[in-house]
Amino acid sequence: SKRYSITLLPGDGIGPEVIYVAKNVLNLAGSLEGIEFNFQEMPMGGSALDLVGVPLPDETLLAAKKSDAVLLGAIGGYKWDKNEKHLKPETGLLQLREGLEVFANLRPATVLPQLVDASTLKKEVAEGVDVMVVRELTGGIYFGKPRGFGTNEDGEEIGFNTEVYATYEVDRIARVAFETARKRHGKLCSVDKANVLEASMFWRKRVIAIAAEYPDVELSHMYVDNAAMQLVRNPKQFDTIVTNNIFGDILSDEASMITGSIGMLPSASLGSSGPGLFEPIHGSAPDIANQDKANPLATVLSAAMLLKYGLGEENAAKRIENAVLDTLNKGFRTGDIYSAGNKLVGCKEMGEEVLKSV
Amino acid sequence: SKRYSITLLPGDGIGPEVIYVAKNVLNLAGSLEGIEFNFQEMPMGGSALDLVGVPLPDETLLAAKKSDAVLLGAIGGYKWDKNEKHLKPETGLLQLREGLEVFANLRPATVLPQLVDASTLKKEVAEGVDVMVVRELTGGIYFGKPRGFGTNEDGEEIGFNTEVYATYEVDRIARVAFETARKRHGKLCSVDKANVLEASMFWRKRVIAIAAEYPDVELSHMYVDNAAMQLVRNPKQFDTIVTNNIFGDILSDEASMITGSIGMLPSASLGSSGPGLFEPIHGSAPDIANQDKANPLATVLSAAMLLKYGLGEENAAKRIENAVLDTLNKGFRTGDIYSAGNKLVGCKEMGEEVLKSV
Ligand SMILES: CC(C)[C@H](C(=O)O)[C@@H](O)C(=O)O
Ligand SMILES: CC(C)[C@H](C(=O)O)[C@@H](O)C(=O)O
Repeated sequence: SKRYSITLLPGDGIGPEVIYVAKNVLNLAGSLEGIEFNFQEMPMGGSALDLVGVPLPDETLLAAKKSDAVLLGAIGGYKWDKNEKHLKPETGLLQLREGLEVFANLRPATVLPQLVDASTLKKEVAEGVDVMVVRELTGGIYFGKPRGFGTNEDGEEIGFNTEVYATYEVDRIARVAFETARKRHGKLCSVDKANVLEASMFWRKRVIAIAAEYPDVELSHMYVDNAAMQLVRNPKQFDTIVTNNIFGDILSDEASMITGSIGMLPSASLGSSGPGLFEPIHGSAPDIANQDKANPLATVLSAAMLLKYGLGEENAAKRIENAVLDTLNKGFRTGDIYSAGNKLVGCKEMGEEVLKSV
Repeated sequence: SKRYSITLLPGDGIGPEVIYVAKNVLNLAGSLEGIEFNFQEMPMGGSALDLVGVPLPDETLLAAKKSDAVLLGAIGGYKWDKNEKHLKPETGLLQLREGLEVFANLRPATVLPQLVDASTLKKEVAEGVDVMVVRELTGGIYFGKPRGFGTNEDGEEIGFNTEVYATYEVDRIARVAFETARKRHGKLCSVDKANVLEASMFWRKRVIAIAAEYPDVELSHMYVDNAAMQLVRNPKQFDTIVTNNIFGDILSDEASMITGSIGMLPSASLGSSGPGLFEPIHGSAPDIANQDKANPLATVLSAAMLLKYGLGEENAAKRIENAVLDTLNKGFRTGDIYSAGNKLVGCKEMGEEVLKSV
C-alpha cells in the first residue's frame, strides 16, 4: 500500500476543529483506496506565537518541507491583531508560502445547486457559477523590495511597498493558469491594470507570450476594476481567472462571497516541485471557536484538493467530493449554510455524516 | 446674478451625448436660481489624440484650471487601446487629476427604490444601500516612483511600480472622509491591507491620528479582501469608506455594480482649492456611441455634484436631483435601466424629460 506523510497545521480559532474532521476523512478515503497517511501535527500562527514566540517555527517549516503535502486549518485572532509585523500570525503564513515556494494559488468558487440560496445574488445570476481563480502567491507587492517606512524629499514620513514581477514569475503562473483552463472550459481571463501600471503591462506582455504555447485556450484580458464589477454583474462569464497576488487576494474573496458559502470553499497552493499547501479560504473565526459550530467542509474539500493536486490520488479525491455532495443532498447543514427544511448539525456531526458517505 | 465658468470635456464615445444633456440641465437649473454659466468646451482623451496628438492638450488643462469647475463626459475606446502609455486616453485623465490636484474622489453608490430590481443582488440585500466611497486619487501606486521596466539581479526582465503614501497625503484624504462621514451617518470605514503592506500600516496610523479631530465619527478598519466580500454579503453595513487609489478603483467599481445601475452614478474629484472635476463613473461605451442610447443621468447627477461640492450651489443641485427622481417616478428609462412596465427612451428624450422637471 502507498504511504504519504502529511503535515497538519491546525492553527488558531476553529482551525483545530476542522482539521480534526478532515484528518478522519482523509484516513478513511485513503484506506479505501489502499493509501496510508502518516500525520504530523505542528504549531503555526497565533498558537505557535503563544507556544514558542514566532508565527512559523523553524521545525514547522522543516517538517512541512519534508512531507508530501501540508494541510492548514486557519490562523489569526483578535489576540494577536495588534502585534508587530514579524509577530503577526499572517506573517507566519506568508513565510510558509515563501518557504514552500508555492507560487500558484488555486481558488475555486463554485455555486453548488444545493446551496444556491446561500448567495446574496439572485438565483438566476448565482446558479451555475463555477470560477477558478489562479492567484500568483509568492511575488508582487506582498514580497517586493524595497518596502518599509522612511521620509521623502520634503522630510515627510512615508510608508511604501514595491509591486514587481519578473519574467519567470509571470511565465510560471501563466503556465499553471493555462493548464488549469485547459482542464476546465478552455477560457482564461488575465486580470491586470495595464492601463496604468507598468508591472501590469509587463504581466500582460508575458501572459500573451506564454499564450503561444496554448493555442487551444481562449485568452482574454480585463482591468481589475472591471473584473470586480463583472463578478457581481455576471459571474458566469468567467471560467478561469489568472491575476497577481494582491488583485487575486481581493477578487478571489469577492468571488467566494458570490457563492454565498465561503464555509465550503477550499484552496490549493502549488509550487514547481515539493509539497503543496492546502487550506480552506475562510478564516479562523475566533467568535465561534470551540463551540462545535464551524463548517468543516471547506477543509474536507481542501483535503480532496490535497489528494488530487498534491498527491495525484484522483480516486480518493473523488470519494471525498462525492461524500460531501451526498451529505448535502441528505440535508445536513452547519449554521453558516443552513436554510429552512434542512438538518442543522455541528462541526463534529457534519464530519461523522461525511464519513458515512466516503 | 452669479456667474461661473465651466470647462466641458465631452471626450469620447457617448461622452458628447451625455455632456450635451447635462449642459442643458445645468443651464436651466442655474437660470431658475439666478446663476449664469459660461461654458467652454475643450478636447480631451482619444478625441484630443486624434485632433492634436496628445490626450490632454496644454490648452485644455489651462482652461480647466482657470474655470470654476470641470465636467467630463467619458474617455477611451478600442481605437486607442493599443497606444503606448503616454498616448493613451487614460493617461490624459491621470494628467488632468494630477494637474488639478483633485486628491479626493467621492463616489456615491446608492440604490434608488425605483431601480432596486436592476441590481443582481437580492432585493432585501440591495434595497437601501447607500455607500460613499472616498478614494485617494492623486497618490499611491498610480503615481509612485520609481516605476517602469528593467532587469533584476539575475538579469531577468521586470516591470515595477511603487505604492507610497506620505503623511500629508493620508491626512488630507482622511479629513475629507471624516467630513463626508459627518454629513452622512457618522460612520467611516478605512480599508487597507495593513496585515501585509507597510504603506497600509502607515495609512492606518495616520487615519487613526486624524480621527482624534473627529470624535463624533465612528471609525473602523477593514482589510481590502474582506471589504470586497462584505460589499457583496451585506453592503448596507457601510456608510462612508475611505481607501487608497488602487483599492478605491476596485471597490468603488464593485460598489457601483452592486447598485445595478452604473448608468446612474456620478462622481466628484476635489482638491484643497481650485476647480473640482465631475464625471459619471461609467466609461465611454463606444459600442453604443452616436446611437442615442446612452443614459445621461450619471452625467446629469455629476452636474448636481458640481453645483453642490464644486460651487456650493445647493439649491440648484437639489433641483437637478429632484428632477432626476421625478423623471424616474414618471417611468422614463434608458435601455440600461429598463424594466417591464416603464417607458423606454433614448438619451435625448431622457434629457428633455429631466428638463421638464427641473
Ligand atoms: C492572511 C493574509 C495574509 C492572506 C493574504 O492576504 O494572502 C489571506 O487574506 C489570504 O488570502 O490567504
Ligand atoms: C481609466 C482609469 C485610468 C481610471 C482609474 O483607474 O482611475 C478609471 O478606472 C477610474 O476609476 O476613473
